[in-house]
Amino acid sequence: MAAGFFSQNGNGEMTGVSWIAESGTFSGPVAITNTHAVGVAHAAIIAWTVQYHPRLADAWLLPVAAETWDGYLNDINGQHVTQEACLAALAAASSGPIEEGSVGGGTGMNCYQFKGGSGSASRRVDYAGTGYTVGVFVQANFGSREELTIAGLPVGQALAADNPMADYFGQPAGAGSVIAVVATDAPLLPHQCQALARRVTLGLARTGTTGSHFSGDLFLAFSTASPGGITPAVSTFRPGAGARYDQLRFIPWGFLDPFFGAVVQGTEEAVLNALVANEDMTGRAGHRTPALRRDQVVRLLSGRRAASTRRR
Amino acid sequence: MAAGFFSQNGNGEMTGVSWIAESGTFSGPVAITNTHAVGVAHAAIIAWTVQYHPRLADAWLLPVAAETWDGYLNDINGQHVTQEACLAALAAASSGPIEEGSVGGGTGMNCYQFKGGSGSASRRVDYAGTGYTVGVFVQANFGSREELTIAGLPVGQALAADNPMADYFGQPAGAGSVIAVVATDAPLLPHQCQALARRVTLGLARTGTTGSHFSGDLFLAFSTASPGGITPAVSTFRPGAGARYDQLRFIPWGFLDPFFGAVVQGTEEAVLNALVANEDMTGRAGHRTPALRRDQVVRLLSGRRAASTRRR
Amino acid sequence: MAAGFFSQNGNGEMTGVSWIAESGTFSGPVAITNTHAVGVAHAAIIAWTVQYHPRLADAWLLPVAAETWDGYLNDINGQHVTQEACLAALAAASSGPIEEGSVGGGTGMNCYQFKGGSGSASRRVDYAGTGYTVGVFVQANFGSREELTIAGLPVGQALAADNPMADYFGQPAGAGSVIAVVATDAPLLPHQCQALARRVTLGLARTGTTGSHFSGDLFLAFSTASPGGITPAVSTFRPGAGARYDQLRFIPWGFLDPFFGAVVQGTEEAVLNALVANEDMTGRAGHRTPALRRDQVVRLLSGRRAASTRRR
Amino acid sequence: MAAGFFSQNGNGEMTGVSWIAESGTFSGPVAITNTHAVGVAHAAIIAWTVQYHPRLADAWLLPVAAETWDGYLNDINGQHVTQEACLAALAAASSGPIEEGSVGGGTGMNCYQFKGGSGSASRRVDYAGTGYTVGVFVQANFGSREELTIAGLPVGQALAADNPMADYFGQPAGAGSVIAVVATDAPLLPHQCQALARRVTLGLARTGTTGSHFSGDLFLAFSTASPGGITPAVSTFRPGAGARYDQLRFIPWGFLDPFFGAVVQGTEEAVLNALVANEDMTGRAGHRTPALRRDQVVRLLSGRRAASTRRR
Repeated sequence: MAAGFFSQNGNGEMTGVSWIAESGTFSGPVAITNTHAVGVAHAAIIAWTVQYHPRLADAWLLPVAAETWDGYLNDINGQHVTQEACLAALAAASSGPIEEGSVGGGTGMNCYQFKGGSGSASRRVDYAGTGYTVGVFVQANFGSREELTIAGLPVGQALAADNPMADYFGQPAGAGSVIAVVATDAPLLPHQCQALARRVTLGLARTGTTGSHFSGDLFLAFSTASPGGITPAVSTFRPGAGARYDQLRFIPWGFLDPFFGAVVQGTEEAVLNALVANEDMTGRAGHRTPALRRDQVVRLLSGRRAASTRRR
Repeated sequence: MAAGFFSQNGNGEMTGVSWIAESGTFSGPVAITNTHAVGVAHAAIIAWTVQYHPRLADAWLLPVAAETWDGYLNDINGQHVTQEACLAALAAASSGPIEEGSVGGGTGMNCYQFKGGSGSASRRVDYAGTGYTVGVFVQANFGSREELTIAGLPVGQALAADNPMADYFGQPAGAGSVIAVVATDAPLLPHQCQALARRVTLGLARTGTTGSHFSGDLFLAFSTASPGGITPAVSTFRPGAGARYDQLRFIPWGFLDPFFGAVVQGTEEAVLNALVANEDMTGRAGHRTPALRRDQVVRLLSGRRAASTRRR
Repeated sequence: MAAGFFSQNGNGEMTGVSWIAESGTFSGPVAITNTHAVGVAHAAIIAWTVQYHPRLADAWLLPVAAETWDGYLNDINGQHVTQEACLAALAAASSGPIEEGSVGGGTGMNCYQFKGGSGSASRRVDYAGTGYTVGVFVQANFGSREELTIAGLPVGQALAADNPMADYFGQPAGAGSVIAVVATDAPLLPHQCQALARRVTLGLARTGTTGSHFSGDLFLAFSTASPGGITPAVSTFRPGAGARYDQLRFIPWGFLDPFFGAVVQGTEEAVLNALVANEDMTGRAGHRTPALRRDQVVRLLSGRRAASTRRR
Repeated sequence: MAAGFFSQNGNGEMTGVSWIAESGTFSGPVAITNTHAVGVAHAAIIAWTVQYHPRLADAWLLPVAAETWDGYLNDINGQHVTQEACLAALAAASSGPIEEGSVGGGTGMNCYQFKGGSGSASRRVDYAGTGYTVGVFVQANFGSREELTIAGLPVGQALAADNPMADYFGQPAGAGSVIAVVATDAPLLPHQCQALARRVTLGLARTGTTGSHFSGDLFLAFSTASPGGITPAVSTFRPGAGARYDQLRFIPWGFLDPFFGAVVQGTEEAVLNALVANEDMTGRAGHRTPALRRDQVVRLLSGRRAASTRRR
């Protein structure tokens, strides 16, 4: 599929990105796990391909495995993520709504020093009579409490209480990382996927972050519109593969702004969803992360809504 | 000086960037003008160097000239920006506060379909007992009216009235561009300057933009802390130049977060300053751009402030 | 047209590259001149567009103007390249064979401290029953004498005599620059154009260079196969521009190796052609550059050929 | 350490590169293995750090693990490279000469369709009274037989016989990959390390390759001159880490050309060493790769040497 990668802050890992940058494509599963399980996840994608798509595994595989760091809640050096667990996750993959919050790779993650994890959101964009979907998935594990902004309201300071991570980490309150995956069925050029990936930053900014150095902020965007539209090199990598032409259909650059807007909005909402779909968690060594207090947020936002209503 | 460049959306021009990317440095004046005067500005920097720094002009010069498009208000194809005008601007350069609004390169620019132009803002960051300044200058010429956000409040729709550009341009309401220059006296590595440049996006996002394709969003960041700290190649480019070592002093990566925050805040404020420091303008062919209605903004924000006050 | 840019060593200027990197396209003329005339050439392309393609000039133009440094032979700070001269060059542009050697932008250039300048070469690649052409144009102004290699033979030391530039420049014997433009009628994706641009380095290496820091080595590659295949943003930049889809046809990645080989061979030959199509030149201040001694080269290569013949 | 990365052709994997691009640094071991063992090698570096440098493993680790594909000779999908094997390799690491040929990660590799693998070479560069070393290590697994060039002589066609891989792979004769690691004790800026990494291409080109799409050509360069000169972020990542300044000493850009030359020469020789230090190998499924016939090469080169001698 046409794909693009962008590193807003490279303090993290996403494997496979040299290939994406080279070819403008990627294929296969995306694994997102904790920092020290990237290798296992990478190996598991290969093992899965060997088992289920052996012909693809005859050539080299350059899987995409990404990570954020969960060492506050998780015994990250304990090698608890096994190849078997990854294979089970791959086997369980299905279409439909994505579980959010403290599930899968997101289990041990924190965001704005609240319990974070997996979040997703999507927007529909109508173009030329077709409704396209732009979906954003984040493994949200970034941000300092004081910066948290919701719907434009800087709520972080009002929500400063109960921040056990602050005592643990000290200074770099923004430590963590965020992996974002933008997927759309809109037909796009690889360069356009790169442009989508770069819009993730604008969505994250709406949640308040100023982009800590201690955060690996790596974004992947791809279009499912033309599966195989860019012939995988491997299929030409055999005697007798016939010469032919690829054909890629895509929305002209001049009409992409609504798709960019969808990425920005989707990213903002996906981060908030990762916060909202959570409860308090206590992990290794008694480390505790509180969930975002939804009732407090409602109260804070209601105050503004009242004001806005009066105003208009 | 140590320097870094970032293109958030490359629908624009900043000359000199291949050299900045190669060497992590740049030197000399930065010219920011309209799109079709980039060449003249480039030539003028060379002419100025030939006149005032002839020894530097013995080698090749790779000036930084950047642009945003002002063809709505300005007769951009009329060649009105002359080499003489550029030389006069260079001669008039001085330290101290920067004029804002519709001055210099910013004269014909629009921002969120209000009158835009030059804006600047800075933040102080204390580090190791020293107060450093992070300054941001923008030539703000981007954004669609409906997206405008001030202090987190999406005011664009409330300010939708009187938008003559909307009728002129049609669809791509976010057309324009923004050049940002981040300057600091904090000592930085070139890679750290790149990281600062990438934070400009987060500041722009706070003003509401979703990053139109029709906008050249190009950012330069540099540190004035070590002038000549990275020896200009030209001074070794002569027989007998003695072998020696350069030395660069910089703040460790782990302490940069406050500087990143300063870029984000400075960028947001610089854009708003470009909007606030303006009056209505009527340009070529009767094209008119209204200034941001400051009283309306005050009223909109007061509503929220009232709510916030009650709430805390 | 689909296009890609690569900077092997960024000590030089090619304008327009942020746009090429963003969109994977470029359009319009390419001007290659001396370093200090880049601005004039940039302005001239705009003036030419205003005159001959006024509708295009209603939007912003991001021309490609590139340079190498000819200050040894040319009074580079004398502003001798005028807008009129550039417009005349644009008017004189035609299809057919390209003049080589000391013509146009190449006039004052030196290569391996011999007289250099413009060189071109092409290769035919048959694919799927069609013969495609890969052409390479270089403005060759790089390399130190001692490194010159021809057809694999390191002839530089045997040709060390008569090197007046050595006395002028002192140490950095490899100073200069090389701009390469790779053009092909083979249908390509933008990412594939980037890959072609990166192969220029391999062709240059065959002529002996080790890539001096003092050389701006900037390469552009594009495909003429689908003019307008990627809709110029400007044509959507008007009310009523109809939603539609672009379609790009291209050779699959797996079949590109012969095209990469063509770039490498074409680049090597283009550099040699720039050397061969020359005579001695004396420029400003009595500075003289000898042409490559073709008879000497023939003699040196004959020696090897004889040996090779015996050997096989 | 100061470090830089370059992807000449991104059909391969080197983990850790987002961090190197971000910070200009890297630390820790580099593992180079086969394509499908990258994950295991990544996990092993983490396990090794947990065991021997537990304090470092308190934060996140972004190891460098790279690969080339050995599936012709090796049962690459058999998971034969285990974490234990990687840990043993790390334990066995020592200073001194590097074994070459079919050892370690290089065991199953082929180069120009001869037996390839590990190769290394170095050059001394005197600067300011100090002798610095530039070393190049390659895991050489690239190139089509017909392109092989040795000392400028295109020997590939003369050595065309006995090429069993040709029958196996069919068309993409250049399939494979090459990982290069450039290490120097010369003090360098991160940007200068990037420039060194980009010179690897020029050295590879001297061995004849035109850069097949089917080859992941990824290069890392670093300077050992200032270990810890760029403070690892992790050490500021704790309460009470004192504010201070880093200091980096480096050779000015203008004096780097000899170091670039050293990379080019070192790379060329390292590839040839990988070819020369080998014997025939028969691997899985009876697949056989012949070693370069050293006697034939001597004979081919002698022919030229004779001619060259006569000529001077």
